[in-house]
Formats: sequence, C-alpha cells, structure tokens
Amino acid sequence: MPARDPAETDAVLLANTAFYDAFSAADFEKMSELWARESTVSCLHPGMPALHGRPDVLESWRRILAGGPGSIRGHEPKVSLFGTSALVTCYESSDAQPAHLAATNVFVLEDGRWRMVHHQAGPLARAMPITKRSDMN
Amino acid sequence: MPARDPAETDAVLLANTAFYDAFSAADFEKMSELWARESTVSCLHPGMPALHGRPDVLESWRRILAGGPGSIRGHEPKVSLFGTSALVTCYESSDAQPAHLAATNVFVLEDGRWRMVHHQAGPLARAMPITKRSDMN
Repeated sequence: MPARDPAETDAVLLANTAFYDAFSAADFEKMSELWARESTVSCLHPGMPALHGRPDVLESWRRILAGGPGSIRGHEPKVSLFGTSALVTCYESSDAQPAHLAATNVFVLEDGRWRMVHHQAGPLARAMPITKRSDMN
Repeated sequence: MPARDPAETDAVLLANTAFYDAFSAADFEKMSELWARESTVSCLHPGMPALHGRPDVLESWRRILAGGPGSIRGHEPKVSLFGTSALVTCYESSDAQPAHLAATNVFVLEDGRWRMVHHQAGPLARAMPITKRSDMN
C-alpha cells in the first residue's frame, strides 16, 4: 500500500536530519547511535567499495569524522515509507556550496526508533544550487 | 532482528538478477513489470537528479533501454532483509568490462513478489575486476 503517514514521514525526516547533524558536528557517538543495531547495515561512500556490517561501516565513519566538523546538509529530502522500513533521497551539500552529491538513506524501525541501515552517496553531474527553502532538515 | 532467511534471500537475488536481465536485454516490458506498482518508487541514475514516482522512473528506463541491449551485470550482490523490504548492494559492469559502478537496489514484497522500489548507481573511483565467481546473478 502507498504509505501516507505524516507522523511517520516526519519521524523519518528527523532521523535523516540527525544523520546530517552528526555528520556536520563530526560527532561519532551520535553517528554510532543512529545506525541500526539489530538489522544488517551497509554503506556506499562516494567512489568506494561497499561496506557491510556495523564494525566496518562505523569504522569508516570514525575515519571520516576524524576530519572534523563542517556543514553537511541533506536538501530536498523525499521519504518513501514501506511499513517498518523507509527510504529517503536527498542532495548533499557541504559548507553551503551547491549540492554535489545525491544520496539514498534507508532506515528501519528498531524498538520504535528509525535507525539507519544504509547510506549511498554519489556525485551529481551538475551541482545543484541550494536555497533556504530546499533545506528541509 | 537480523533476518537470515535463505529462501527469501534467494528470492531477492532473483529479483535483482531479473533487473539486470531486463536492463541487458533492453526489455522495457520486463523492466516495467519488476518495478513496484503500489509502493512509492524512486531512482538515482549516475550523475542525475532524483526521479520519483512510477511514470518518471519508467520513462527514464524507456529512454535508457532505447539505446539497445548490452551486457549489464550486478556482481557480488549482498542482500539485507528487513521483513517485507530488502536491500541489495552490488557492482555493475557492462560488456564484461571491469565493474565501474556501485549500486543500491531496494525491493518490497508486493502480492508475494519482490518488486523494485529504488535504484541508485554511482561511479567507483577504481574499477573492479570481475570474475566468473563474482558474477552471482
């Protein structure tokens, strides 16, 4: 069924925002917290081979976040709900530059919380101007 | 819960293979058939802005497949099951060249069939040699 649940959609958007907040703040504890514990996780960083499993995925984030904070935002997030799973597409910008990556973020409900199970980001051929209005997170 | 259901995993792998078979054969009918009807669908083609909804996603495939058949394979597929949703990561090669894209394919169970709801492919910084063994589909 096409899921149209505004409250769940908002909850998924909040989870998506929490991801970019942790990324921006280079806050490894928060990043670790928001990835799923029980479901299988995976990650496709731009250009890189796939990572599977919490240890490898979180180790990759530890290394990325060691680079320090910056402003990473997810613009124009669009949520698809599939029961206890959800998918968000958005465009990623850093430091208020035009968005240069397109991303897929996948979440599952674990103990009533939307936790991340997958992230892929890949380059846009043409960077996208960002506007206040498009910055929904 | 970590889902370890070999039969469902195989069914998802078959759905993933069907996607690359339709892509390779430039078979629009089969491509249309394997995308979800009831759930929201989306697609992030390499470098391109996000597409949402069956009409836009399928129109993009119609245009891509108009280019004619070729050998597109998904290598080293790895399945994560989340109840009635599933996610596959794999590497895409065309015409037996080293794999040059990493992909996320998301499926949901609709009427007992795993149907695609999302596809993202993005370039690998370093192309991956492909072997017969890695070609699981």
